[in-house]
Amino acid sequence: MPETAQVAVRQEASSLDCAIADWIAALGESNVSADPAELAVAGTATFAEERAIPAILRPGSREDVQACLHIANRHGIPVYPISGGRNWGYGSRLPAVNGCVLLDLRRMNRILDFSEELAYVTVEPGVTQGQLFSFLRERGSRLWMDATGASPEASVLGNAVERGFGHTPYSDHFGHACGLEVVLANGEVVETGFGRFPRARATPLYRYGVGPSIDGLFSQSNFGVVTRMSVWLMPAPQQAEAFFFRCDDENGLSALIDALRPLRLAGVLRSAVHIGNDYKVLAGIQQYPWEEAGGKTPLAPGIVRALRRKLNFGAWNGSGALYGTTVQIAEARRMLRAALRGRVNKLQFLDERKLRLAERFAKPYQMLTGWDLSRTLELVKPVFGLMRGVPTAQPLKSCYWRKRGPLPAELNPDRDRCGLMWIAPILPLRGEDAVRGSDIAIGTVLEHGFEPAISLTLLTERTIDSVISIAWDRDVPGDDERARRCHDALLEKLTASGYYPYRLGVQSMSLMRHPDSTNQLLARFRDAIDPRHILAPGRYEG
Amino acid sequence: MPETAQVAVRQEASSLDCAIADWIAALGESNVSADPAELAVAGTATFAEERAIPAILRPGSREDVQACLHIANRHGIPVYPISGGRNWGYGSRLPAVNGCVLLDLRRMNRILDFSEELAYVTVEPGVTQGQLFSFLRERGSRLWMDATGASPEASVLGNAVERGFGHTPYSDHFGHACGLEVVLANGEVVETGFGRFPRARATPLYRYGVGPSIDGLFSQSNFGVVTRMSVWLMPAPQQAEAFFFRCDDENGLSALIDALRPLRLAGVLRSAVHIGNDYKVLAGIQQYPWEEAGGKTPLAPGIVRALRRKLNFGAWNGSGALYGTTVQIAEARRMLRAALRGRVNKLQFLDERKLRLAERFAKPYQMLTGWDLSRTLELVKPVFGLMRGVPTAQPLKSCYWRKRGPLPAELNPDRDRCGLMWIAPILPLRGEDAVRGSDIAIGTVLEHGFEPAISLTLLTERTIDSVISIAWDRDVPGDDERARRCHDALLEKLTASGYYPYRLGVQSMSLMRHPDSTNQLLARFRDAIDPRHILAPGRYEG
Repeated sequence: MPETAQVAVRQEASSLDCAIADWIAALGESNVSADPAELAVAGTATFAEERAIPAILRPGSREDVQACLHIANRHGIPVYPISGGRNWGYGSRLPAVNGCVLLDLRRMNRILDFSEELAYVTVEPGVTQGQLFSFLRERGSRLWMDATGASPEASVLGNAVERGFGHTPYSDHFGHACGLEVVLANGEVVETGFGRFPRARATPLYRYGVGPSIDGLFSQSNFGVVTRMSVWLMPAPQQAEAFFFRCDDENGLSALIDALRPLRLAGVLRSAVHIGNDYKVLAGIQQYPWEEAGGKTPLAPGIVRALRRKLNFGAWNGSGALYGTTVQIAEARRMLRAALRGRVNKLQFLDERKLRLAERFAKPYQMLTGWDLSRTLELVKPVFGLMRGVPTAQPLKSCYWRKRGPLPAELNPDRDRCGLMWIAPILPLRGEDAVRGSDIAIGTVLEHGFEPAISLTLLTERTIDSVISIAWDRDVPGDDERARRCHDALLEKLTASGYYPYRLGVQSMSLMRHPDSTNQLLARFRDAIDPRHILAPGRYEG
Repeated sequence: MPETAQVAVRQEASSLDCAIADWIAALGESNVSADPAELAVAGTATFAEERAIPAILRPGSREDVQACLHIANRHGIPVYPISGGRNWGYGSRLPAVNGCVLLDLRRMNRILDFSEELAYVTVEPGVTQGQLFSFLRERGSRLWMDATGASPEASVLGNAVERGFGHTPYSDHFGHACGLEVVLANGEVVETGFGRFPRARATPLYRYGVGPSIDGLFSQSNFGVVTRMSVWLMPAPQQAEAFFFRCDDENGLSALIDALRPLRLAGVLRSAVHIGNDYKVLAGIQQYPWEEAGGKTPLAPGIVRALRRKLNFGAWNGSGALYGTTVQIAEARRMLRAALRGRVNKLQFLDERKLRLAERFAKPYQMLTGWDLSRTLELVKPVFGLMRGVPTAQPLKSCYWRKRGPLPAELNPDRDRCGLMWIAPILPLRGEDAVRGSDIAIGTVLEHGFEPAISLTLLTERTIDSVISIAWDRDVPGDDERARRCHDALLEKLTASGYYPYRLGVQSMSLMRHPDSTNQLLARFRDAIDPRHILAPGRYEG
């Protein structure tokens, strides 16, 4: 923990009381909470990290955020901003260190600007994926948003500044956003790109502006509170067609990846193709197969192999989508077929018409196509939706993998003591690296008694993001600690092999504590705008 | 001029002498020049700005650059790095302020890494467009670079950090580069993205790394000297087909732009389409038509109209390219035809086969297709090459627009006293904005006695970069001053209308002197790493 943060933790209760009084004066009583039950909930995540959170503030405007930060500075109380608080698997809404007051931005949920013509929307941090989706649908817009699987309640802006990704060609959320308004730790407001100039017309459209481009500084950082952002939207293509493939050969990954790379580089695959291993697919379909496993954990590879045959999925299972006109899609389909020939056991294409058909006639459809949709339809539908930017809570179900008993009606992994940690290394988009990264994950996670559920996302033209999830039941004694050891060992092995994560959970921030000159540079910058170190201390900080 | 820079300018001669002695000790005598003739050439651009340059340093390595900066700091002498020094129209190689020693990085011209598989190359600042092109060709690489029209001698890295653009789908040069190595003003070295971590495998492949992303800070800035950069290369498509269209109606621009926007947004047009007005095309084909104009300037719109008919070009003239498989190109061609129907007078497609044919059989080709290539072939060929990433010096010819007499064998606009200034505002990609921006340019430039040569580049999915050139003959008394007034008036009118430039010449840096909080933030950052203000003072600085 950085020294300044330690000092903040040891703050005098009296200065906290004074700060709370000031915050109440600024925001009103109803927007400041020190309710112990609420604070305890806020301080809980899906793994064994808790945070002492002295209070929760709910600013309603940029001016409120500025006031909150001025007060925080005056009293030396650190604050930690959250947009939606749905940072599942990375710490939910936990600050990196103890003693931070939460700056909950959910009340700032206005959609400030929208252009159907130029295909963008300007949002505040509290705007959720579900809200934006409804906004577009209500207007009969022909524009698509890009969604993550983090549920309709997740913040659009929050995911973007965390550099999350989704499933359409606009999957790089930070790469499709610009024109940030940021409140710095000292309460000053900066606008990025052309926004700093009066009456600039291209602010929501052009990232760089003129002069140094500073947007990146406000992603994965503690340099400021982003209070506004323009997000680019994708014009709906004439047609979108999902594809699904599976490879039954456990050793087939390398050839598969190398076959897909040219298509990704050439832009035939415009969106991020996802490839999941057997464990990943299984955790998407159902909870832990306690019966088949005889109540034992981890789930042995042999049992998963048997389930593969029974449930009709492969060692590696891919999904993605093609976008464009009928002709463009037909051509992409041809190229994909040619590339995957001999490398996959099954390649299926699915459009909206086929999906509706499948829903209505699952049985006849199986007879017609030979493909059993009955078990996978529940899994396929939300994935198909994500490929068109439709938010869903479906992926959250896999957080309950090791929980016994049925899923609750309303999913809440924090409350339900689901154990979940994600480690997401970036790999070069080559078969060799995909295999090496996956082998490390499979070996390490099994060795620690968990199931290596792995997805490999062809995130950019040249990289794979492999998201490795470690899921457990926090109610099983000892598993919290085992999971933590597993996480630490895996991160250690991956980075030792040159595979660094694209994003960190609050439990992994120590990776940044690396004595390099970038850290020194960032520390100098931080000192220049946050000398008391009151903004999100320890977050992505060396 | 910022105060610190003023102080630097008033440096004692003795401290300069000491610094030069130290630089000679560090780099060797042959790599430090104080030759008055050479310094005078270095201090000259294509407009009436001169700089007193006390010396030129030629470091050969990153360590040399560090040594140069340490010495600069010790003696308080400002330095200004140049990569290729071909920043035509924006100040060639001039520092923003007087008294800067040039840090000429051309000796650092190694290609450090290259992957055909992952499609990137890692270069030092001295690597030129021509050098990279030859490197790829010699290896029989199937990868394309993206080139600007700034000649084969222009630096790849230099153009990228200046955020220049080219003509293929990889036209955004800074957006297709990552993994920077930067020497800060204080001599420290930082690596961006994953480069800060040991053995990281995705450094040349993935922009963001983990934690705050700082690449943007080193573009259009004076925060550091970029000494290495990985540049992504585009796999050659199966086919590339250029298209050219013209619109004879001066009022046809708005409908044209609005027709192209959906294609750019949908990715049918993957590269930046360029639209030039009549003046722009004429300046590309020939020098000023002194005879037709009866020796008068500016060239009246009526004369240009007559030349349009004679030389067979339109009021607005577009060029771009389609990339992909035969089927993909056919489909894109169909969509482009449909979009432009009724909006252009001629739409022609040109592939390599047709071009070879045209070269051999210009006359029969004209009979066959009705298109007279004889006059435009010289113009078309380099443009066709640029669409495939082939560097060319051809666009430099237009710098000689107002010069009398034939072009020299070796083009050198600085030496030949060509007058050239560019103003390049970003416009929203809408007909309305394209027209408003162009009208401002046409009116203002004609009013000041020059020809409004305008290109409108569909730079991104949502923006146009309009490059307005003011060209004159510096040997004509009074024209330097007139051009400057024209430039200043144009920049003032454009920004007052909300159209800000994407890039600034050394004569326009005052635009940054705007009392906004971004400037305050950047000034604080600068103070943190360059307290003596020795690195490129005044460059993109408020």
